[in-house]
Amino acid sequence: MSRIITIGREFGSGGRELGRRLSEILEIPYYDQEIIAEISKSTSLPEQYVQRVMEHRPIASFPIHIGRSFYPVENPIMQQGIEIYQEQSRIIREMAEKSDCLFVGRCADYILKDMNPFRIFVYASMNSKKKRCRDNARADEKLTDKELEKKIIGIDKNRSKYYEFYTDHIWGDRLNYDLCVNTTKMDIKEMAQAVANLLS
Amino acid sequence: MSRIITIGREFGSGGRELGRRLSEILEIPYYDQEIIAEISKSTSLPEQYVQRVMEHRPIASFPIHIGRSFYPVENPIMQQGIEIYQEQSRIIREMAEKSDCLFVGRCADYILKDMNPFRIFVYASMNSKKKRCRDNARADEKLTDKELEKKIIGIDKNRSKYYEFYTDHIWGDRLNYDLCVNTTKMDIKEMAQAVANLLS
Repeated sequence: MSRIITIGREFGSGGRELGRRLSEILEIPYYDQEIIAEISKSTSLPEQYVQRVMEHRPIASFPIHIGRSFYPVENPIMQQGIEIYQEQSRIIREMAEKSDCLFVGRCADYILKDMNPFRIFVYASMNSKKKRCRDNARADEKLTDKELEKKIIGIDKNRSKYYEFYTDHIWGDRLNYDLCVNTTKMDIKEMAQAVANLLS
Repeated sequence: MSRIITIGREFGSGGRELGRRLSEILEIPYYDQEIIAEISKSTSLPEQYVQRVMEHRPIASFPIHIGRSFYPVENPIMQQGIEIYQEQSRIIREMAEKSDCLFVGRCADYILKDMNPFRIFVYASMNSKKKRCRDNARADEKLTDKELEKKIIGIDKNRSKYYEFYTDHIWGDRLNYDLCVNTTKMDIKEMAQAVANLLS
């Protein structure tokens, strides 16, 4: 089976941990933040800025009304979002052509679809995601339960919109993935080993 | 992890094959048609009849209008559907209490929820399901492509309605399962081995 692996994941579901462990067992490169660093290098835009653009779908341009006619307005922010996505696609393809590897997020399942990647989606119950966020939180991050839930929903909403904008597919729709893993009651270490066996 | 395993599956997705293989590797009983035979025995209803009732959600009773008042009508067909479901629940619980085992369909994931089963959902693309149906079809079953697709959609619609009627959950909703497996590109034998390793 393909050893180019892509992981889509809900925020707080442990998808990144699953990816990290899986890439270690299979001894293949793991790409996540590395892609942002590469885009930043090739576009000369600061990493933080690239990250922010990649977390939101581009804002659509809007027509303006002058007299009786509508004119589309060039929207430089939207344009930049699309350019960063194109650069991201180029870099992801380049990485996947070099060797077997694993990508977390970034629409990699769609970008690499003609290379037949093994596509995983990781999800969990809201309570489980909140617990994982709490366990991993920096000491200075003290959100109330309600604030944390709002943050999780907000991040996933952005991921969903971003994915749908560029792929025209529904984020998390099971037909777009080969395996969907619920980490609510799952030991991620054991799951990583099971998937590694399947792909070995 | 729990070795009481439940498998929900789309028609033609290979869920039954995955279940059969998994139960063989784990050397645990596999229950599918066996449940119908048990219900038939305990209710003295013919197996074929039990099967038919279990493939459809009960038809809701309807109120009738007499003068200015509405009276609910006893609906014996609906009543029998519910009684068969209750008998099915009793038998499934009895089987699960006896030993580790695997159930295909029958809302077993819901019926056994307090026993913390490992819940799998098996699905595939329409083309893949049609191909599997063709490969397994009896020689006398010659449906056109359109007829076969209609049959697949119809059976899954009934499964979905049946499941939702008794569990109040959405059939195939990923949060109701621990693992969702897309068999479109998957070798079912290898997948069965991987899940067996995970649960061993």
